[in-house]
Amino acid sequence: MKTFRIDGQTGNCEIILGESISNLNKYCNREKTVIITDPNVNFHYGNLFSKFSVIITGTGEECKTLDIIKDIYKQFLELQVDRLSLIVGIGGGIVCDITGFAASTYMRGIPFGFVATTLLAQVDASTGGKNGVNFEGYKNIIGTFNQPEFVICDFNVLKTLPHKELSCGFAEVIKHAVIKDERYFRYLEENYSEILSLRKNEIKKIVQDSISIKTEIVQSDEKEKGNRKKLNFGHTLGHGIEKIAGLPHGEAVALGMIFASNFSVLRGILQKNDGERIKKLLKKFNLSIEVKLNKKDLMNAIKKDKKRHSAFIDFVLLEKIGTARIFKVSIDELDVAIDEWVMDVG
Amino acid sequence: MKTFRIDGQTGNCEIILGESISNLNKYCNREKTVIITDPNVNFHYGNLFSKFSVIITGTGEECKTLDIIKDIYKQFLELQVDRLSLIVGIGGGIVCDITGFAASTYMRGIPFGFVATTLLAQVDASTGGKNGVNFEGYKNIIGTFNQPEFVICDFNVLKTLPHKELSCGFAEVIKHAVIKDERYFRYLEENYSEILSLRKNEIKKIVQDSISIKTEIVQSDEKEKGNRKKLNFGHTLGHGIEKIAGLPHGEAVALGMIFASNFSVLRGILQKNDGERIKKLLKKFNLSIEVKLNKKDLMNAIKKDKKRHSAFIDFVLLEKIGTARIFKVSIDELDVAIDEWVMDVG
Repeated sequence: MKTFRIDGQTGNCEIILGESISNLNKYCNREKTVIITDPNVNFHYGNLFSKFSVIITGTGEECKTLDIIKDIYKQFLELQVDRLSLIVGIGGGIVCDITGFAASTYMRGIPFGFVATTLLAQVDASTGGKNGVNFEGYKNIIGTFNQPEFVICDFNVLKTLPHKELSCGFAEVIKHAVIKDERYFRYLEENYSEILSLRKNEIKKIVQDSISIKTEIVQSDEKEKGNRKKLNFGHTLGHGIEKIAGLPHGEAVALGMIFASNFSVLRGILQKNDGERIKKLLKKFNLSIEVKLNKKDLMNAIKKDKKRHSAFIDFVLLEKIGTARIFKVSIDELDVAIDEWVMDVG
Repeated sequence: MKTFRIDGQTGNCEIILGESISNLNKYCNREKTVIITDPNVNFHYGNLFSKFSVIITGTGEECKTLDIIKDIYKQFLELQVDRLSLIVGIGGGIVCDITGFAASTYMRGIPFGFVATTLLAQVDASTGGKNGVNFEGYKNIIGTFNQPEFVICDFNVLKTLPHKELSCGFAEVIKHAVIKDERYFRYLEENYSEILSLRKNEIKKIVQDSISIKTEIVQSDEKEKGNRKKLNFGHTLGHGIEKIAGLPHGEAVALGMIFASNFSVLRGILQKNDGERIKKLLKKFNLSIEVKLNKKDLMNAIKKDKKRHSAFIDFVLLEKIGTARIFKVSIDELDVAIDEWVMDVG
């Protein structure tokens, strides 16, 4: 087992890699524990939750609404949850987002932790203290920053995941390498087949390296005033594509990263060859590099991004593989760049 | 002008006493300012808000719901509010509670400040970083801790307040003296008539002393793990009475303080004479010391208190005037004590 820590303004978080979900009891030592999970996770691991009260959410991005949060508050009240209770979200990014927001706003915040059961949640979504729900078509527009007390990543649970779900996690893994660590990127290029076959040592290595990059960035800028914005690489277009093309988060982010690389090349700050390497690596991890989309819809979706301020948006571009930088890009310039790209991929 | 500061985990707050609401512009130097206020404040001071967008809430405790928060989120989106905007809540405790929660959860938290226009808000509700709304009959059960950037207290606006509203503020003033400062309590006993006639120096003194006590306590325990609970003196029964008798917050808290004093005497930790002094002072400030209520309803309301854990509740009692202490009191013991008191006042 290896652990990482985030000592944040909003709380301290311990991330425990390689712990088994069957040891869950060890972490539930408060007066009362309530588990929030989705039907799939409950199907596979429900037998481990028998000692606790369980709240079942929906699945899919559509269930991340204020209504589900209201429903959870009601169940908290029925279960007499209070500040001495512990809430544990067990699932992927959606369960973590919902659980974190409900626990952070009930009684002005009660203790909570996560067991991340998807690769995407293990390498990214469960860590960093962001939570929230969607509202009026705006992604994660309502939420807080608040660290969970712990995050447990059990590598064995990944074996039950469908391939599509794994690919989504790989997209965020590649993102971490691209923005921060060229050596890690090379490792992914050289070991993709072992990783894809979920070989234990390789999975351990990528979760560890990704969490290491993410915790370092979050520790330096918990509330995303500067440096943390780099983690949004590929996410501005990604969120737009996710919404209008109905793709899963990771697949949409992969396409967003391709656009951001192209845009970096177009701006003359990234070598064309580096852009090609990124595209190739995404392909190796079975991430689609093409999509049909309507440009007008995409622009409308991008205008709904939290990172936008009036006519400008904070956009993450690449100087080289391993080095990202944040630029203020005008919506007009983005519009032109997307035009070229949409013609290219559309 | 005198200023106080809270340097909290959740942010830093400057409380500015004696500033004029007409200088509001000075504090609104972000890209965009949106004001949240109620119809009464807007009627008196709306002419000062002409440069800004204004969102009008309802009045009364009943409007503190998740629905009003949802409505504010919608208006934020329409007004293109983002992280570079500033939200200013201008009003009493209800406007502050609503504004703080909406601003703290929109885009995971955007900057906000307050202009406190009631005595209750100036001496208590606007300061300390608590916000929230009611849900399913539970008071302030949904909310966060998050400091506003500034709180402006303009003493002149108090002149337009109805007497009932002022009395509510005096209840919290007396609370601060009772739990923390015997000399301040004596000052109130000796100067009540000047204070009641809103003489400038006396008002300045009580807002200043109350804010001084409150900021010191909040600074020592922002998230109410220990010491800050003392500020809940009179509030456990107070919230219950507020709900079942439909009294304003301050009037209900006054009754809650009388019960807590009686209970302290009953437990043998407070001298009977001190209990009488408290009752007398509340009376001098036109706070009613009697109420008709149904005991069963009151107990049900108390069981809905955030401070309750299973069969116990954190209850603030007095050792003497100026010295409060937190006790774990069983619901059963409280039940007996309330029995006697209800027979007494009912």
